[in-house]
Amino acid sequence: MRAPITIDALNSCDAATFVSLMGEVFEHAQWVAQAVVADRPFASAEALHAAMMTKVEALPEPELLKLLAGHPELGGADARSGKMTADSVREQGKLSLNSLDQAQALRWDALNATYIERFGFPFIICVSRHTRSSVLRNFEKRLINDRSAELAQAVTEIGRITRLRLAAKIAEHGLLRVNGALSTHVLDTSKGCPAEGMRFTLHELSDDESVRRLIVDAVTDSRGRTPKQLISGEPLRIGLYELRFHVGEYFRRVGAIQSDRPFLDIVPVLFNIEDPEGNYHVPLTVTPWAYSTYRGQ
Amino acid sequence: MRAPITIDALNSCDAATFVSLMGEVFEHAQWVAQAVVADRPFASAEALHAAMMTKVEALPEPELLKLLAGHPELGGADARSGKMTADSVREQGKLSLNSLDQAQALRWDALNATYIERFGFPFIICVSRHTRSSVLRNFEKRLINDRSAELAQAVTEIGRITRLRLAAKIAEHGLLRVNGALSTHVLDTSKGCPAEGMRFTLHELSDDESVRRLIVDAVTDSRGRTPKQLISGEPLRIGLYELRFHVGEYFRRVGAIQSDRPFLDIVPVLFNIEDPEGNYHVPLTVTPWAYSTYRGQ
Amino acid sequence: MRAPITIDALNSCDAATFVSLMGEVFEHAQWVAQAVVADRPFASAEALHAAMMTKVEALPEPELLKLLAGHPELGGADARSGKMTADSVREQGKLSLNSLDQAQALRWDALNATYIERFGFPFIICVSRHTRSSVLRNFEKRLINDRSAELAQAVTEIGRITRLRLAAKIAEHGLLRVNGALSTHVLDTSKGCPAEGMRFTLHELSDDESVRRLIVDAVTDSRGRTPKQLISGEPLRIGLYELRFHVGEYFRRVGAIQSDRPFLDIVPVLFNIEDPEGNYHVPLTVTPWAYSTYRGQ
Amino acid sequence: MRAPITIDALNSCDAATFVSLMGEVFEHAQWVAQAVVADRPFASAEALHAAMMTKVEALPEPELLKLLAGHPELGGADARSGKMTADSVREQGKLSLNSLDQAQALRWDALNATYIERFGFPFIICVSRHTRSSVLRNFEKRLINDRSAELAQAVTEIGRITRLRLAAKIAEHGLLRVNGALSTHVLDTSKGCPAEGMRFTLHELSDDESVRRLIVDAVTDSRGRTPKQLISGEPLRIGLYELRFHVGEYFRRVGAIQSDRPFLDIVPVLFNIEDPEGNYHVPLTVTPWAYSTYRGQ
Repeated sequence: MRAPITIDALNSCDAATFVSLMGEVFEHAQWVAQAVVADRPFASAEALHAAMMTKVEALPEPELLKLLAGHPELGGADARSGKMTADSVREQGKLSLNSLDQAQALRWDALNATYIERFGFPFIICVSRHTRSSVLRNFEKRLINDRSAELAQAVTEIGRITRLRLAAKIAEHGLLRVNGALSTHVLDTSKGCPAEGMRFTLHELSDDESVRRLIVDAVTDSRGRTPKQLISGEPLRIGLYELRFHVGEYFRRVGAIQSDRPFLDIVPVLFNIEDPEGNYHVPLTVTPWAYSTYRGQ
Repeated sequence: MRAPITIDALNSCDAATFVSLMGEVFEHAQWVAQAVVADRPFASAEALHAAMMTKVEALPEPELLKLLAGHPELGGADARSGKMTADSVREQGKLSLNSLDQAQALRWDALNATYIERFGFPFIICVSRHTRSSVLRNFEKRLINDRSAELAQAVTEIGRITRLRLAAKIAEHGLLRVNGALSTHVLDTSKGCPAEGMRFTLHELSDDESVRRLIVDAVTDSRGRTPKQLISGEPLRIGLYELRFHVGEYFRRVGAIQSDRPFLDIVPVLFNIEDPEGNYHVPLTVTPWAYSTYRGQ
Repeated sequence: MRAPITIDALNSCDAATFVSLMGEVFEHAQWVAQAVVADRPFASAEALHAAMMTKVEALPEPELLKLLAGHPELGGADARSGKMTADSVREQGKLSLNSLDQAQALRWDALNATYIERFGFPFIICVSRHTRSSVLRNFEKRLINDRSAELAQAVTEIGRITRLRLAAKIAEHGLLRVNGALSTHVLDTSKGCPAEGMRFTLHELSDDESVRRLIVDAVTDSRGRTPKQLISGEPLRIGLYELRFHVGEYFRRVGAIQSDRPFLDIVPVLFNIEDPEGNYHVPLTVTPWAYSTYRGQ
Repeated sequence: MRAPITIDALNSCDAATFVSLMGEVFEHAQWVAQAVVADRPFASAEALHAAMMTKVEALPEPELLKLLAGHPELGGADARSGKMTADSVREQGKLSLNSLDQAQALRWDALNATYIERFGFPFIICVSRHTRSSVLRNFEKRLINDRSAELAQAVTEIGRITRLRLAAKIAEHGLLRVNGALSTHVLDTSKGCPAEGMRFTLHELSDDESVRRLIVDAVTDSRGRTPKQLISGEPLRIGLYELRFHVGEYFRRVGAIQSDRPFLDIVPVLFNIEDPEGNYHVPLTVTPWAYSTYRGQ
C-alpha cells in the first residue's frame, strides 16, 4: 500500500495521476474516479467521497447492477482462488473468508447462490465492520428483505467500503465515522486507587462462544489503563467480545488476599459491539469480593 | 438407604441394633460403633460423632494405619471394579471417579501409588466437599506434606466423611457445619424492582474452564429469586462455578431494549467456592448497560 | 385503646356491642356501623370494611357532605382546641398539627378556608400516610382540582383512614395494603461480609431539608441488618428521608483505615417514599473508597 | 501581584532586582533571598526553593525563632487590624480569619496564646491547604506535640507556604506538589450514556456540617463532565465537601420518570479531602433507582 497522500496533493496532481491513485477505491470501477476528476478541488476527503457517491447514487439501475456485479462473492470461489483486488483480499482475509474448510465453503456458496438468484446481484457488505458471526447473521437477515431495500443497502455498504479505502489512502483525511474505539480502566475500590499491573485479555468470540480469538493480552499501567486504546484506528467489528481480568492474581500480589482459590479469580465481561464507529469504554471497579462494570464513552 | 432414625431411638435401641445402624459410618470399622455403644445416651448427634472421633483419635499409630488402610483408593482399582462400601461408591460416583477413561485412570493410579509409597497409607479426603478439579489440586498439594501432617489431615477428613454419613442416617441431626448454601437474586436497577422471569444457569467448571457441568437452569420469580436456594442440604463442592444470566432476553421482553445484539446479552459471573459449609449469596444488580455483583451472605 | 377483637367475636356479639365497638371507625358517623350490623357475619375484616365503604359510596351527595363535614379541619381550630375524636387527635398529633406556631396556624387556616369555600366541605386526607411536607404539598395540589374529583378523593381518603382504624381494632385483621416497611442492609465489599456494628441513623426531612426529625439510631448486627425493620406495622409517611451510615468509624474500628479524616466518613442516602404501603429496602454496599445503594424490595 | 517572571530572567537579573522580587517569599525575611543570590543560576524553581529552604533549615535555633516570630498569628490581632504582609492578608482572608466575630476571635486568641506560651513561637500553618475546620482541628492536635516536633513542623509549613508563593511569582514554575484537582463525571447507567445537562453543586462544609459554602454550581456537558475541573490550579483545602447531584430533575427531563417525588431526587455525596495536592475524581453512575460513587484519580 502506498503512503497516504494529502488532499491538497490530490487536488493539484494531473488527472491521470488522480485516477490512478483513486481508481481502486471503487471495486473494478475506475470510472468513478474519472467522473469526479473535473470537479476538483475538493475541500476535504469528505467532499471527495460525497462527490464519488453522488455519481454512484445517480446510476440508472442497469449501470448500478454492473457496479455491484464487480464485487466478489463473500467467501466465494473468487476469494478462495485469489481472483480479487488487493483491497478485497485484505478485507476478506481478516475474517479468514479465503481459507474456509469445505463445510463452511459449501455454506457460503449456498448463501451466495440464494442471494444472487433472489436479487440478481451479489451480496455486498463492508466486511471490515464485522466479525464472521455478524456477517453470517447479517447475510441471513438480508436474504428476506425485498429487492429495493437490498439495492439501497448495497449502495450504503459501498459507501462504507469506499470511505474506509479513502481513509487509508488520504493523509489527515478527517473522514467522519471511520473508526471506533474500545478502552478499559480498572479501579481497585478496596484501596481507592487505579489497579496497576493487572493482566487482562480481550477476545473476539463467535456468537455461540464456541470460537474465541485473542486480540489483546495486556497489563494495566499506573493509571489502571493501557497506554493506548484496545482497538482504535479502524472500525470495531460488530460482534461478541470478552474482557477477562486477572483479578485474583492482582489482589494476591498486592497482599489483599492469600487464598489460591479466591472468590474472584478471573472476572469475565461479555459484551456486544453493535456500532463499529462507536466509542466503547468498559471499565471495571473491583474489590476481592465485588465488582461493577458498565458501558462508558 | 434407610430412613433416618432419631437420636432418641438410637439411644434406646439394643446394642446390636445400634451397631448395625452405625457400623458403616466408619469405613470397614464397625468397631468404632461398638466402642461407643456403652457410652449411650448421647445428648445429640454432635455428641455421638465427637465420642466416635475420640476413639479414632486415641488409636495408637499401627491401629490408625489399619483404619486408614480400610479406605478405598480415590479413582483406584477398587472404585473401578466396584469393591467399595455403598457409601464410598456413592461419594466417588458423584465425581465420576468410578468411570475414568484410561489416561485419567493412569494419572489417578500414579497419584495413589506415589502417595501410598511416600506415606504408607492411602490418600483420604472427604470427596463430597470437592469438585474433581479441587480433589486433584488437593491431592498434588498434600503429596509434599510431611507424614505427621498427613496423618492428622487423614483423621480430619475421616471426621468430615463420618459427619456427613451420620447426618444422612440421623433425623433432625443438628450437626454443625454439614451443609452450605448458594443463592442468587437479580434486581433490575433501571426499574427499581426485582427482575422477574430472568433465565439463568449455574455450572460447575473445571479449574481451566475446559469442562462444564450444568447444575441449575432456572427462572427468577417475582422477587427476583428462586423458590429455593441453588444448592443446599449438602456441602458446596470446593471449585469454580459460573452463573450465566440471560440479561438481554429479559430486557427485550420488558421492552427496555430492542436490539438483537444488546451491549449485555449473557452476563457471566465466575466465582470460586472455597468453604463447603459456607453461605454464598451472589446477587446481580443490572441495567441494560451496567451490572454489579458481590459476595453476600 | 381497647385490645383488638377477632372478626369471629365481632360476628357473634350482639348488635349493640358491635355498634359500640365499630361506631368510631367513621368519624362522627356511628350510623355506618349500624347500617352493616344486619349484614353479619363478615368473612373477614376486608369484607367488613368493603361493606361499610359501600354504604358511604351509596350516599346521595347531601348525606355525603354531612359525613365529610364531620371531619375536623387539619391543623384547624378544633385540632388546636382539642374538639376532635380520640383517633383524630392521635392522627393529627403525629404531625404536630395540634401544636402549630402562630405563622403556621395562619397558613393552615388560610388553606382550610380556601378549600372549604371552594368545595363546600373540609379537606380530608389520611394523615397517617403523610409527613407534614407531603400533607402541605398535597393540600396545595388538590386545591386546583375540580369539585367532583375532590369528592371522589375525599371518599378514597375516608377509605384509607377507616381501613387503618379497623386494622387497629381487629385482631389478625388481614387487611391488605395497611402497612409499609423500610429496611436496610450494609455489606462491606472490601471484606466480602456483612458490616457488623455500623451505626446509622434514619431521619424524616422536610422537603427543603431544613427540618430533620430523628426516627432511628441503630447499629447493624452480625448480618449487617437490624433485628427488625426500620419502619413497619404502619404506613410509611410519604416524604423525604435520609439514612446516614457511619462508615468511617466502622472502617477505623475494623482496621481498614487509620485516618481521622477518611475519604468516606458519613455516607448520607437521601430518598423519597411515595408509596406508604410499599416495601422499601435501601441497602448499602461499601468499601472505604466506594459505595452503592439502590431500591430493593 | 506582579506578572510571573521566568526562572531565566531571575537568573540573569541583577542582585538587587532578584532580592526585591524574591524578598517577600519568606515572611519579613528578605535575608533568605539575599543569602541565595550568589548561588544563581538555578536550574529550576524547585532548585531555587530547595536552596532557600536549606538556608532556613541551617539556622541555629535563636535565628529560626526570629524567623518564626515574623509570622502573624492566625486569626490574631494583627490579622484583624491589618498589620500583615499582602500575602498573609490574602491567605488568611480566604478563610475569613480577618473578620471573626467576637466569640470566634476570643477562641483564636486563646489558642494562639496557649501555643506561644507553650512553645515560645507562633503557630505556623500553610492556611491555603486548609478549610477553617481543618485549621482548627490541626491547631488543637498540634498543641499537644512536643517542642522539637513543632519546630520541625513549623519549618515544614514554611516550606509549603513559600512553595506556593514561589509558584505564584514564577512563570512555568514546574514546582511539584503545588496544586490538587477535583473533578466529577456523571454516567446514566439506565441508558448507557453520559448524563448530559445534570445540574450539580459543590459545597465546602464545616466538619459538623453546620456551615456550608457553595463553591460550584454547574451543569454536566455532553460527556457528563464539566469543561474544566471543579477545583484546580491551587491546593485542595483539607476538609469536608459535598457534591449534590440533581438526579430527579434530570431523569424527569429525559422522560425516564414522571413522579414529582422520585425515589432519588437530590443525590448527596459527602467526602473528605485529606491530600491538598491530590487528584480526586468523584464520579456518579446513576439510574432513577440506584447509584454508585467512588474515589477515582
